Amino acid sequence: MSGVGAASFEAPGAAGYPACGSSVADSDERRLAWVYLSRVVQGPCAAVSALIASVGVVEAARAVRESDLPESLRPATQQRRGIDRAARDLELAERIGARVVTPDDAEWPAWRLLGLARLDAGREGAMPLALWVRGPGSLSACTERAIAVVGRRYNDDYGAQVTGEVVGDLVAQGWTIVSGAAFGIDGIAHRVALSLGGSTVAVLARGVDRPYPAAHDRLIAQIAESGLVVSEYPLGVPAHKHHFLARNRLIAALSDGVVVVEAGSRSGARNTAKWARRLGLPALAIPGPVTTANSVGCHRMIREGEARLVTRAEDIIEEAGPLRLSQPDTTESAVSGNEALVFDALPRTGSRQPRELATASGIALPEVRAALPVLEFAGLIGVDENGWHRIRHGP
Amino acid sequence: MSGVGAASFEAPGAAGYPACGSSVADSDERRLAWVYLSRVVQGPCAAVSALIASVGVVEAARAVRESDLPESLRPATQQRRGIDRAARDLELAERIGARVVTPDDAEWPAWRLLGLARLDAGREGAMPLALWVRGPGSLSACTERAIAVVGRRYNDDYGAQVTGEVVGDLVAQGWTIVSGAAFGIDGIAHRVALSLGGSTVAVLARGVDRPYPAAHDRLIAQIAESGLVVSEYPLGVPAHKHHFLARNRLIAALSDGVVVVEAGSRSGARNTAKWARRLGLPALAIPGPVTTANSVGCHRMIREGEARLVTRAEDIIEEAGPLRLSQPDTTESAVSGNEALVFDALPRTGSRQPRELATASGIALPEVRAALPVLEFAGLIGVDENGWHRIRHGP
Repeated sequence: MSGVGAASFEAPGAAGYPACGSSVADSDERRLAWVYLSRVVQGPCAAVSALIASVGVVEAARAVRESDLPESLRPATQQRRGIDRAARDLELAERIGARVVTPDDAEWPAWRLLGLARLDAGREGAMPLALWVRGPGSLSACTERAIAVVGRRYNDDYGAQVTGEVVGDLVAQGWTIVSGAAFGIDGIAHRVALSLGGSTVAVLARGVDRPYPAAHDRLIAQIAESGLVVSEYPLGVPAHKHHFLARNRLIAALSDGVVVVEAGSRSGARNTAKWARRLGLPALAIPGPVTTANSVGCHRMIREGEARLVTRAEDIIEEAGPLRLSQPDTTESAVSGNEALVFDALPRTGSRQPRELATASGIALPEVRAALPVLEFAGLIGVDENGWHRIRHGP
Repeated sequence: MSGVGAASFEAPGAAGYPACGSSVADSDERRLAWVYLSRVVQGPCAAVSALIASVGVVEAARAVRESDLPESLRPATQQRRGIDRAARDLELAERIGARVVTPDDAEWPAWRLLGLARLDAGREGAMPLALWVRGPGSLSACTERAIAVVGRRYNDDYGAQVTGEVVGDLVAQGWTIVSGAAFGIDGIAHRVALSLGGSTVAVLARGVDRPYPAAHDRLIAQIAESGLVVSEYPLGVPAHKHHFLARNRLIAALSDGVVVVEAGSRSGARNTAKWARRLGLPALAIPGPVTTANSVGCHRMIREGEARLVTRAEDIIEEAGPLRLSQPDTTESAVSGNEALVFDALPRTGSRQPRELATASGIALPEVRAALPVLEFAGLIGVDENGWHRIRHGP
């Protein structure tokens, strides 16, 4: 294998990209690479994401493992590049009923996470490399229509009542409830969803085998039974303080909008709402009495234009719903630029892998990868185990 | 006296304007004219305001009395033009401890009401012709720093508590509380201000001798003892439904901002806030629990951008305060257009009446009247019983 020193990966040839799932062996190799890198970076790492986009995940894993990297990439990978236990991780996951979902998998919520890929790559908002998941549902299906409900750890009766009403109404209308499994509003949101037989997704700031908070063990186990427990941190990784902010970006990214119920002035919920705004998703807050301090953060967010005021599920769906539920624009003329070129590269019948589309369209693989979910969202193409294909509309 | 048929008052010469307070007799004549017209129109009447601006109040009163008017002006005046009891009204007012404040009076809150004059003259937002007042204070002084606090007639404990806290803090910082003396939030706002020895102004939708609601007789009497009870409706006029909307515009116009505490979905308070927006003043609303319907109107106003969310007096002062409390720009170069010409027409020493300034500057009297409060607000000129004069700043 050739090295990926600065010179070589600045201008990689399309032919140099690894194939995507073109054989079982390749597929396994890629999975091991994602899992290895996931443990090396432990959280979002824009530099490694860029490396993968540039040279592919298998080559990126090799380069990291061998420290065959430009100086600028070493700090992010140096500490744990020697820990190569990807195969063991996969075994362990299977043993405890967990799995790893990578960008190669059908249940990868590609169009949800696309927003992260589009954020300034220099920031902490990078795409996750892999998501560790417990629970029966498909991650992409569960988050198809999802609202994040987050808030104060020390809620009062009002917060509990409002969360119960809002979550109850959202669940009744088929929305998945995403939250952070913390004490207070988060826990209530999950519990109400569970009690009504609704779908709920808990995104953790530590490995999915290390539930937190400890007193929420049982809640986490219940969510894992019928919903999903998700983390970008590999098994066994404890929660560090900085994990929570990164975790909040996933709560936002996996949802159609973030609703804050009760928040103090320095609430983590405000951070989650900020992620929603950065991702172009609605950030919403429910007001409360001004005679207690429990809604101070909500009021401040509304007052400062950081969140829109909502009072009930109907408002929330009005804000978060239309974008997702609107009739997709299925006219091919609705796309342009890379999207149009990638679409043109797809045959009328049959499927293609991203790499093939890169070759056919003359567009670099990362741009092809970015274009595909846009086309999918526009209702023009679909994806299955054979790859991407056109969707036929009308006559 | 010449007629004011269409031809003559379309283009009146400046010389044809009546003098403003240039003698006691003139002054009495003008006062009687304002009072007469106030009873004829009973509420805002843009057509009559325009007539007064055009030919002066004395001539306008004569023309109305004699129906010496263009066809378009007759409907607004026909019904009560025969009721000429201005002298009796003034006597009666004096007897019951009330007074009439007209645009000629020093306590006329000229710069407050200027906003109304600037609104589209075709709308219901005209300047009042006279204000009927009970109470010891000067209307212009009492409303120098004023916040309107309005809300639901059927408040709950939360509304009472919030009104108490906000009004208490505003009063402690020297703000006058303006409201409508209705049941519920209005009454609480007045009572809290009174109980703390603060200044409060009640604006009624009927004559100041006919307090409403009846059960608030005692409250109205208390306000008249230390604050002000104000109405643009002459003595004896009962409250008609349409009076309330016109009254709301005065509540807004006499304040630096309108704060709504608890409001149903069709609350009159929302109308008062709308007037604030039309006048360029802050419209503010305090949120409440979403678990009762009492703050539905507040939440809707915030959600729809009709009001900004505030939670406490500090927020309100931040919104309403700076405009009024900011250092006036006392550089003469800060004014332009009519204001500059009117300012130039004022001698370095000595005072001038508006009419003299109109002649000296070549600007029509209504424009001179509009320019004077702007110059006053800019800190460039002042007014006393001798008329308008320059204020000297520094060397």
